[in-house]
Amino acid sequence: MTGPRFTPLAQSLPSTVPFVGPEAQERAMGHPFDARLGANENIFGPAPSAIAAMQDTASRIWMYGDPESHDLRNALADFHNASRSNIVVGEGIDGLLGYVVRLLIHSGDTVVTSLGAYPTFNYHVAGFGGELHSVPYKNDAEDLPALLAKAKEVRAKLVYFANPDNPMGSWCSGPEIVSQIDDIPDGCVLLIDEAYVELAPEGTAAPVSIDDPRVIRMRTFSKGYGMAGARVGYALGNAEFIKAFEKIRNHFGMNRASQAGALAALQDTEWLSQTQEKVAAARNAITDIAAKYGLKALPSATNFVAIDCGRDGTFAKLILDGLVANGIFVRMPFVAPQNRCIRISCGSERELALLDAALETVLADHNC
Amino acid sequence: MTGPRFTPLAQSLPSTVPFVGPEAQERAMGHPFDARLGANENIFGPAPSAIAAMQDTASRIWMYGDPESHDLRNALADFHNASRSNIVVGEGIDGLLGYVVRLLIHSGDTVVTSLGAYPTFNYHVAGFGGELHSVPYKNDAEDLPALLAKAKEVRAKLVYFANPDNPMGSWCSGPEIVSQIDDIPDGCVLLIDEAYVELAPEGTAAPVSIDDPRVIRMRTFSKGYGMAGARVGYALGNAEFIKAFEKIRNHFGMNRASQAGALAALQDTEWLSQTQEKVAAARNAITDIAAKYGLKALPSATNFVAIDCGRDGTFAKLILDGLVANGIFVRMPFVAPQNRCIRISCGSERELALLDAALETVLADHNC
Repeated sequence: MTGPRFTPLAQSLPSTVPFVGPEAQERAMGHPFDARLGANENIFGPAPSAIAAMQDTASRIWMYGDPESHDLRNALADFHNASRSNIVVGEGIDGLLGYVVRLLIHSGDTVVTSLGAYPTFNYHVAGFGGELHSVPYKNDAEDLPALLAKAKEVRAKLVYFANPDNPMGSWCSGPEIVSQIDDIPDGCVLLIDEAYVELAPEGTAAPVSIDDPRVIRMRTFSKGYGMAGARVGYALGNAEFIKAFEKIRNHFGMNRASQAGALAALQDTEWLSQTQEKVAAARNAITDIAAKYGLKALPSATNFVAIDCGRDGTFAKLILDGLVANGIFVRMPFVAPQNRCIRISCGSERELALLDAALETVLADHNC
Repeated sequence: MTGPRFTPLAQSLPSTVPFVGPEAQERAMGHPFDARLGANENIFGPAPSAIAAMQDTASRIWMYGDPESHDLRNALADFHNASRSNIVVGEGIDGLLGYVVRLLIHSGDTVVTSLGAYPTFNYHVAGFGGELHSVPYKNDAEDLPALLAKAKEVRAKLVYFANPDNPMGSWCSGPEIVSQIDDIPDGCVLLIDEAYVELAPEGTAAPVSIDDPRVIRMRTFSKGYGMAGARVGYALGNAEFIKAFEKIRNHFGMNRASQAGALAALQDTEWLSQTQEKVAAARNAITDIAAKYGLKALPSATNFVAIDCGRDGTFAKLILDGLVANGIFVRMPFVAPQNRCIRISCGSERELALLDAALETVLADHNC
């Protein structure tokens, strides 16, 4: 009796996962976290109108979602002054990243990202047999000129660039990106992950022509719109490129309530404004807490703040472990020198007070 | 300015989709269907407890779902007298089928299914470059001995077998399947799609040993549990096989509200019993409606009934088009001779009365 014959690629893949969820950590600890500040979730939540739309749809959840996400794509097309054919809706940016990689990358194809950038992208590249090249951060920011130069050098088919960046919170202006568009090598696609862009300063979104076949942008309802658990993201790009997703995507993969919730969330601009204010205030509060203990918070255009713990990765990990032991779920960058930081998601006053107290305890434990 | 360089496989794929959604048909018609009886959705809906769980979770949807679906898998493990390590939860069976195909099939690998069986499986096989072989239905049922013989002949890595079958509603007893397990060729996996099994006679589920590496079974909350729009399915199998999903699945792909809804639905056995009764009654009602017009309904172990229109596929398509034009969303098998039938999902009294009236009109139009 023999088992399944996995593909050589599947056999070669590690069983590691990009992220362990906070629930798994809670089960291991035997108690829940007091503050959930590690996954850049938006604790201020979705608009009440979005919650209502999801709740209302729950009673009709016996119906599959519209496989075309027609109404949501229509609204997004209006929002972006584009056409429905420029937009594909998918199961979060994570899902869409997988689709893009699958469309472009097969064994041995080259891909470029920043060393220490979003691991789920790397997971997909490995998952389809791509060869990943990376360039270091520069001043704690993703270095677009270096990424494009590396892409040219290795004849990459795909470059990943998050703006704003995760895990550092740094960003680059939209026009600055556009000024480099012609440096994208022939036959290479620049993927701009704009997951956090609603929380960034005006002008951060790259004003790339929607028809430009060299660029694909990704957006999500997980961050600014506070709907991480609903799994709604979308890609914006050239209609030909977007059409290719039809060949491989899970057409009936969208949750019907999530489609309705995202549509309502998009229309509630007042709630988004309030969220932007709350997030900005929380960033300042985290910065102040860090400063109180002599630590430096990095500037952030996202709903999280990287706090420089002032020494190396080992030390930052001690602080992180201490916070976790004190009931605060946080994460940290994976790679030096960015791993001198811990990454704190914006919380409300309650969570930030808990963070403050825990940080005081942990730093005292380490004689800081 | 060049565009993306798609993989040769991506370039070769057609842009056709497995199914057009009813919403797209409604937009084309300019009005909604009066009765939605085409997608084998469960109009009797999820348990009120499941709806409540989803609604309650909507206000906490700012949190990602647990990537391990721990609580749901725990409950499913109890339900199946298995271990959590035997279960992977995914974005509906559609999503899980994609994962299985991706794990096993690369360019040129052979796969076997029934001619006219679930097209989304075929879509995934094509999407990963597999070579699909098919065997015809036998007496309107999937022919397991022939499928396994074909698998041996073409050295298939994967065989798809739906029990009960869609689109015909036919089924085979679980023990009958188990009696053929040793006919699975070496290195081949038998995938049993049990999407409709909660609606089938006792004893239809295949009592395969959970540790048998030759079989993987799939279940869903879309049909018996009435949660198609929530996108929750799971695969049951050997722990080693299940573990392989960790290498490629979208770990944060599950909707948090859907996880909670599925957990509640699983526990509400009373609601499932009621659904089973309602579905059985609706099957009988559809059979009676068909008989009233001299048409023969096929026996069904699902929440739909195939009605033999008595002539060929062209004629059945006329009837189907007529029903659609009369506001009734229905679908039909794709392949002869099964395409002599139309496939009607179970409805409540209102929908079945509309079906009855529309069928009378349409048959009269065609002088039947």
